[in-house]
Amino acid sequence: MANYKVIIVGASGAVGQEMLQVLDERNFPVGDLKLCATARSAGKKMLFKGKTYTVEETTPDSFDGMDIALFAGGAASTEFGPLAAEKGVVVIDNSSHFRLDPQVPLVVPEVNPEDVKEHKGIIANPNCSTIIMVVPLKAIYDAAGVKRVVVSTYQAVSGAGAEGITELTNHTRAALDGGQVVPSKFQYQIAFNLIPHIDVFQEMDYTKEEWKMVKETHKILHDDTVGITATTVRVPVYRSHSESVNIETERKITAKEAKEILANFPGVIVQDNPSNKEYPMPLYTSGKDEVFVGRIREDNSLDKGLNLWVVADQLRKGAATNAVQIAELVIKYGCLGKR
Amino acid sequence: MANYKVIIVGASGAVGQEMLQVLDERNFPVGDLKLCATARSAGKKMLFKGKTYTVEETTPDSFDGMDIALFAGGAASTEFGPLAAEKGVVVIDNSSHFRLDPQVPLVVPEVNPEDVKEHKGIIANPNCSTIIMVVPLKAIYDAAGVKRVVVSTYQAVSGAGAEGITELTNHTRAALDGGQVVPSKFQYQIAFNLIPHIDVFQEMDYTKEEWKMVKETHKILHDDTVGITATTVRVPVYRSHSESVNIETERKITAKEAKEILANFPGVIVQDNPSNKEYPMPLYTSGKDEVFVGRIREDNSLDKGLNLWVVADQLRKGAATNAVQIAELVIKYGCLGKR
Repeated sequence: MANYKVIIVGASGAVGQEMLQVLDERNFPVGDLKLCATARSAGKKMLFKGKTYTVEETTPDSFDGMDIALFAGGAASTEFGPLAAEKGVVVIDNSSHFRLDPQVPLVVPEVNPEDVKEHKGIIANPNCSTIIMVVPLKAIYDAAGVKRVVVSTYQAVSGAGAEGITELTNHTRAALDGGQVVPSKFQYQIAFNLIPHIDVFQEMDYTKEEWKMVKETHKILHDDTVGITATTVRVPVYRSHSESVNIETERKITAKEAKEILANFPGVIVQDNPSNKEYPMPLYTSGKDEVFVGRIREDNSLDKGLNLWVVADQLRKGAATNAVQIAELVIKYGCLGKR
Repeated sequence: MANYKVIIVGASGAVGQEMLQVLDERNFPVGDLKLCATARSAGKKMLFKGKTYTVEETTPDSFDGMDIALFAGGAASTEFGPLAAEKGVVVIDNSSHFRLDPQVPLVVPEVNPEDVKEHKGIIANPNCSTIIMVVPLKAIYDAAGVKRVVVSTYQAVSGAGAEGITELTNHTRAALDGGQVVPSKFQYQIAFNLIPHIDVFQEMDYTKEEWKMVKETHKILHDDTVGITATTVRVPVYRSHSESVNIETERKITAKEAKEILANFPGVIVQDNPSNKEYPMPLYTSGKDEVFVGRIREDNSLDKGLNLWVVADQLRKGAATNAVQIAELVIKYGCLGKR
């Protein structure tokens, strides 16, 4: 099996670190490895399979001779993504910048793997909340059709990067010990609080995060007739996003059928045994690659509907794992760039 | 103005303490005051309007000669509620025991005040999550009709009483400092976690808390044609429940109209100015009596629908305040018990 030259851009951040970890765990065929980030992080040492790598500042030359570039997100994607693609590197990008570009496939490997083949150098990784919802949603979509989705999220602070994690700890200690709470990454104190405001406000007073869940899901499903409305909320949890997902289906599906369909769907683990207190919780899904689904119930207010409680590690399946899975598809389908 | 003889049963608990506080703040015409609780709390001292009261153990004799009994909830309601009513005391009960009894009015003063008049000795105070939802829901119901509601809750630990508060602090310190997390009041660690399990599991794998939101809302609105489906989740917040409420209306209502209607509805405060980061958050609504509504948006997936983000102090409007408001109606309508 061939080995591939892989570059991670934003390697030292919360998502970049997970990308490195996931490449290792999944035994991705890494030949050369280059770890890049902003000048601020250059010089930092990182380990991969027992070898120490030094983080370099990303420059246009960083991409020369590479096969696959995993972009963790942020401004680097717009600055270097198209340039890397021009150099024949396949860019798998976790930023929101290219996701809705019709020239760029937006891929969740369990849902629309074949879209990878259409890439023109850049493949976009969807928003974390979108990925976590769309995996179980596709299982139901295939089995019973989906008319409409009402989703409310409970999003962990690490969705805002490593600084989000630090801020939750700092705010929590300050709240408990009477210190000063200084919001910086978040709009308000996040410890012992909820903030119904993720990303910027846009049309109709929905946030960009809420619109991402609508528009990206439409693109991934190749179906914009599915009604989707979202309310996204930051919660004082370190890691793993949770979502309360109400689905109105086209055809009747029982809870029992839904459980079977979900259990057989790739990338989904059903945790649903109420009598034994089994349901997904963010504390226990962190570091895992699957989407956990529980509280699977027929909607008591509709003839054809379901309620699901969905939890997954948004740094793993919501970002790094999904990106590495896309890279695996690029290799599987033999659609690397031409250098 | 006459003064009334008031007894609080469960006075030393989280809700009982709030009842005392609310009686004070609202200048309820308290003549004699008796504070009762279980034997375990007897002897405890509590202050009311500068006077010290000693908590007594509740006995059948505790109710002799009283006008109004506020029951904070729990087993005392079934043990002493009917007995107190027989003695001519008007019982306002915060437990779930009598709420669905057709002989017992279930009242939210902003929604169905007149139902108080039908009481036969006991008036039930609804579940906290129900009260918080039904106040803004009634405003929309009156203005545009309601076909269906999808609600996901974010419920504070004090919904589980004073022990819930202690447990969040203990779990948080243990999680931060590496100590042992011992779940007792909650099923699992609640610090930095979410638990989609409040009260016991019942039919269709919904929890009792979820069914309360359906059945109590139907009773309060006198309309069981409204579809309601709920997912209730415990979050690591000390106080104030939050709810993401999606409402399908009978008639079209714009977000602008909804804001005006809600702002003019008694007991509601609209906090909705996204450009200024104004939206309700549980940290800032605690200790307040109103229901705060923000993130008011037309549902982008429906012709006729709204999304609301609703937050209120569940110990105040969700329990103590609502109970004292009911007591005020009892006096206003002159429907005290006959002794």
